[in-house]
Amino acid sequence: MPVSLVTWMYPLEDSSLPHPCSELLHAALFAMANAHKPAMAAALHDGDDIRPFALSTLWPRTRVNGTAMALAKMTGCRFRLSLLTEDAVETFYGGLTAAQGAGMPMRLGASLFKIVSTEMEEGCGAVPYDALPMEMERAVLRFLSPTTFRRAGQSYPLPDPSLVYGSLWRKWQAFSTVPFPQDACDELLGAVALSRAALRTRGWQFARYLLTGFTGVAEFVLTKEVSSEARRLFGALSRFARYASVGLRTTMGLGQCVLLEEP
Amino acid sequence: MPVSLVTWMYPLEDSSLPHPCSELLHAALFAMANAHKPAMAAALHDGDDIRPFALSTLWPRTRVNGTAMALAKMTGCRFRLSLLTEDAVETFYGGLTAAQGAGMPMRLGASLFKIVSTEMEEGCGAVPYDALPMEMERAVLRFLSPTTFRRAGQSYPLPDPSLVYGSLWRKWQAFSTVPFPQDACDELLGAVALSRAALRTRGWQFARYLLTGFTGVAEFVLTKEVSSEARRLFGALSRFARYASVGLRTTMGLGQCVLLEEP
Repeated sequence: MPVSLVTWMYPLEDSSLPHPCSELLHAALFAMANAHKPAMAAALHDGDDIRPFALSTLWPRTRVNGTAMALAKMTGCRFRLSLLTEDAVETFYGGLTAAQGAGMPMRLGASLFKIVSTEMEEGCGAVPYDALPMEMERAVLRFLSPTTFRRAGQSYPLPDPSLVYGSLWRKWQAFSTVPFPQDACDELLGAVALSRAALRTRGWQFARYLLTGFTGVAEFVLTKEVSSEARRLFGALSRFARYASVGLRTTMGLGQCVLLEEP
Repeated sequence: MPVSLVTWMYPLEDSSLPHPCSELLHAALFAMANAHKPAMAAALHDGDDIRPFALSTLWPRTRVNGTAMALAKMTGCRFRLSLLTEDAVETFYGGLTAAQGAGMPMRLGASLFKIVSTEMEEGCGAVPYDALPMEMERAVLRFLSPTTFRRAGQSYPLPDPSLVYGSLWRKWQAFSTVPFPQDACDELLGAVALSRAALRTRGWQFARYLLTGFTGVAEFVLTKEVSSEARRLFGALSRFARYASVGLRTTMGLGQCVLLEEP
């Protein structure tokens, strides 16, 4: 069952962090998971390329400009974590709540944060895989954080329909408990087109490199008559995007995405 | 020698036209070309898919909203016509100036327009093909009218680097007097990536169908070490875009494009 969590926390002292700091968050999450379930954390860390979780960066209540984030002590900050398998829930949610219960702070770089709460995200906290499929012919996705793909050895920061839905399909196949035949995916990828978009690229600075992705809104439509199975898969993947995220580096802040306007 | 012309004209009576009306403009241009050089006009009309001209829609001085354009009589209107071969210049420029000289109005649908002037576009009127190649590693293109491509049977309204530069390359190969080896193009297409963009789709209503394309700004860069020949081709095609236009239906208003910031 895909689960989307929001964790609130605050720094114990005045702090300065890079923005984004999703790499630090990623490391901190694994540190807690490792303390809680070492074998499962190691398996998740060293496993396949396709990971059963997606992570945002850290967002304070205040607005961030540029690539540094000055946080006065006690500033409320949140991050989103979505988990696509029971193992991921047990490992990460378990690690987070164990640390919180024990009053252990979370360390991001040199800063210590007190974990206040970890809750199901409002409106989309948890949903069984078999509740996601739904016949759709139009999906409007909002890409909240920079999103990009790898194609022909290059970063490809555009919402190519095949790359967007191909990325979601691979995660669906890897983690969902509801199988769809490859035929349905082939049909879908042959029929889905971009019909409307308002996009802007943004850089996302990692410690050692910069990735550029697009943010904004993109509408996808089925332009051909397809089977009801392919339409159901289109709905499933469009709704799954909220949990799976799209494209590269989704475990470190990229590709956060929501479906607007559920039919 | 690629030539970019701007024609000014005004309606003789209060007029109402569809917006865009590039189909009407296209037909009117061919009517004048046909009266002037019938054999050459027929050859241009029935020739290859790749045409040696690009045409904007008609723009009044006033702002157009929506898909209808009400023009009070005497409202100044302009359109852009770019011509990529001597034959195209002789046929279209010849036809336009012959009609203007004879005092013949131009008919767009039910409306008659007086042709006031046809002049070289400021700053980029005519340039020999051999003056276009120039080593570049970064090009910022502004797509002025909706631009789209055909890919896998679908309209693809995104500035895919291979589609943008592939489109320009085909026109360059067809019409330029300066050959580049296919190797240089292969090198270029293997190295060019989209590095920045701010885009928005817009529909373009033709009489019988709607095409959606993107407008906005896209920056392309060479991300790998390439030969100086490939860098020169990158510069040539980026500067050629002003004349050639990009993608589908460039003879009917789509794909109008300029290079910003010449180095």
